[in-house]
Amino acid sequence: MARVRNVCVVGLGLIGGSVLRAACRAGRTAWGAAASTEDVAAAAAEGFEVGEDLGAALRKAAERDALVVLAVPLTALDGVLAAVREHAPRCLLTDVISVKRPVVDRVAELAPQARYVAGHPMAGAARSGWHAAHAGLFDGAVWVVCVERHTNLELWAEVAGLALEAGAEVVPASATEHDAAVARVSHLPHLLAAVLATVGAKGGPLALALGAGSFTDGTRVAASRPELTRAMTEGNREALLTALDEALGLLGAARGALASTGSLRATIEAGHEGAMAFSAARSAERAGLRIDLTAPDAVTALQGLAQQGGRITAVDGTGATGSL
Amino acid sequence: MARVRNVCVVGLGLIGGSVLRAACRAGRTAWGAAASTEDVAAAAAEGFEVGEDLGAALRKAAERDALVVLAVPLTALDGVLAAVREHAPRCLLTDVISVKRPVVDRVAELAPQARYVAGHPMAGAARSGWHAAHAGLFDGAVWVVCVERHTNLELWAEVAGLALEAGAEVVPASATEHDAAVARVSHLPHLLAAVLATVGAKGGPLALALGAGSFTDGTRVAASRPELTRAMTEGNREALLTALDEALGLLGAARGALASTGSLRATIEAGHEGAMAFSAARSAERAGLRIDLTAPDAVTALQGLAQQGGRITAVDGTGATGSL
Repeated sequence: MARVRNVCVVGLGLIGGSVLRAACRAGRTAWGAAASTEDVAAAAAEGFEVGEDLGAALRKAAERDALVVLAVPLTALDGVLAAVREHAPRCLLTDVISVKRPVVDRVAELAPQARYVAGHPMAGAARSGWHAAHAGLFDGAVWVVCVERHTNLELWAEVAGLALEAGAEVVPASATEHDAAVARVSHLPHLLAAVLATVGAKGGPLALALGAGSFTDGTRVAASRPELTRAMTEGNREALLTALDEALGLLGAARGALASTGSLRATIEAGHEGAMAFSAARSAERAGLRIDLTAPDAVTALQGLAQQGGRITAVDGTGATGSL
Repeated sequence: MARVRNVCVVGLGLIGGSVLRAACRAGRTAWGAAASTEDVAAAAAEGFEVGEDLGAALRKAAERDALVVLAVPLTALDGVLAAVREHAPRCLLTDVISVKRPVVDRVAELAPQARYVAGHPMAGAARSGWHAAHAGLFDGAVWVVCVERHTNLELWAEVAGLALEAGAEVVPASATEHDAAVARVSHLPHLLAAVLATVGAKGGPLALALGAGSFTDGTRVAASRPELTRAMTEGNREALLTALDEALGLLGAARGALASTGSLRATIEAGHEGAMAFSAARSAERAGLRIDLTAPDAVTALQGLAQQGGRITAVDGTGATGSL
C-alpha cells in the first residue's frame, strides 16, 4: 500500500458517480466508464475522465494495476464481468452492489482470476444518476467491505482504504452475514413500505388526505424506482424470505391478539424495544481497538468486530484501527 | 357565530397544550385543566389560566357556554365524561382523540346531553407533554371534524372554526369513515414499524449497524410511547383488523411470489403506484368551492367532499369554503 492505486469506476450513476468524485477528492487518479450516454456526457462536461468505451477503461486499469469498482445494477453485472475477464482479468476488483452472495458467485464464475473483494456502501438518495452523485455521499456512512476465510487482507485493506477516504466507516462482515443483515434492515423495509402504500391508497382520496407523519415515513422508499427495488430485493431471495417469514409471523400474531384479546401489547412493546436498541446502537460510545492484519486470526477478529456492531476507522500497512 | 366562544381545554399534553396555545394566539379567551401536575405547573408558569380542578374548569365552561375540547387519552375518557355530565352537561363539546367511533359511543352513553362534534387533528410529534406543545402544531395540518347525518351544522361550523383558526384545514368525514381511513394511514404504519423494528433488532448489532435510511424511516414511530400507540391502535380494533388483513394478504402474496417465481414485481409496482398516488394527492392543484350549510343536502355535500380528498378552508355564518 505504499503507492496510491488508481481507480477505475464502471457505472456512473448515483453510487458510481459519487465513488469517482470521492476518489478524485481524495487525490487519486481516477476515471470511469458507463453505458449511459447521459451520465457520461454530464461527467465529461464537468471535466472527469469518462467514456462509453468499457474495454478501453478496463485496459487502462490493467496497465496501471488500478482498483476497478463495479457500480452497475445486478442485472447488468454479467456483461461487465465478461469485459473484465477480457480486458483486465487479474485486476483488483470490488463492487458496490446491494447484495453480496450473488455477486461473489458471478465473479467466481465469470472473472475467476480477478482479485475480488466485495463491498457495499450503505448510502443512497431518492434521486439517481450522475447528477445526484456527490463526493460527500459516503460521509459518516457505513461501507461493508467483505471479509471471508480466504480473503487476502492486504487487498482487503486497499479496498477498505478507498471507502475510508470517501468518508465512510468500514464494516468487515462476510457476504453471507451482510446479506442476512440487509434483508432485515433494507430489503424488508422496502417490502413493508410497498404494502403500506398499497393499503393506504386502497383507502382512496380520504385516506391519502389523512396520511401524515407515520404514513409519510413508512411509505417513503416505496417511491424508489421499482426496477432498482426489484433488483435489490429479488437478488437477495433466500435471506429476504427468512426476514419476511419473521415479519409475517409477528404480524399474524398481532392480528390474532387484536382479534381475540384486543391487546397489541406484545407487538408494540417488542417494537419499542427494537427501536430503542437501534437508537442505542447509533449513539453508543465506542472504544478504540487495533487489529493486526498480519496475525493468523485477523479474519476472525475482523468478522467478530462486525458481528458486535463495530467498525474499522483507519487502515495502514500492517493493521486496522477499529471502534466498538 | 356572531360571538367568539370561549374555549376550555381538558388535558394539557402535546395536543391539548397546542390547542390552548393556538386558541389564545387566535385571540380567544381560553383556559385549561389537566391531571398532570407537571403540565399544569409548566402552563401556569407561562401565564396560562390552568389548574388541576377539572370541575371548576368545566363549571366555568357551563357558565360561559364555552367550547370544551377533550384532549385526554382514550383510556382517561370515561372519568372526564362523568365530570362533563356533572359540571357542564349541555356544553358544546369536541375532542382530539385519534379514534372516533369509540369516543362517539362513550359520549352518547356518559354525557348524552352534550352538544358533541367529534374531531381529530392529524398532527403529532415525537415528544409529548406541555413542553412539546406549540401554537403552530396544526399549521398546514388536516383536522377531521366529523359530520354525521344528524349533525347540527351550526355547531359543526363552530368546532371547524377553532381548527381553522389553529391553522389547519378541515376534513368533514363521518366517524366511521375517519376510523377506516386512519387504520390504513396511521395505525397500520405503527404496527408495521413495530414489526420492522423487532425483525431488525433480531439481526443483532451487525444488522442495526447497517440500518440506514429505509430502516430509520420505517421504524421511526416505533419509538413512540408504547402506551399511547396501544391506546390508539387497540381503540380502533375493527377498522385496524380490516387494514391488517389486507396487509397480511399482500405480504403473504409477496412471500409466495418470491419463494416460487422469485419475482416481487406485483408487490413493488403496486407500492410504487400507491406512493405516487399519495404524492399526487399532496401536490394536487385544488379548485375552490362553496357549500351552503343551511341547504338540506349540506351533510351529504360535506361528506362527499371528504371522500374525494377535499378540505374546508373557511367557515362563516351560513356556509363553508372548500377546496378539491
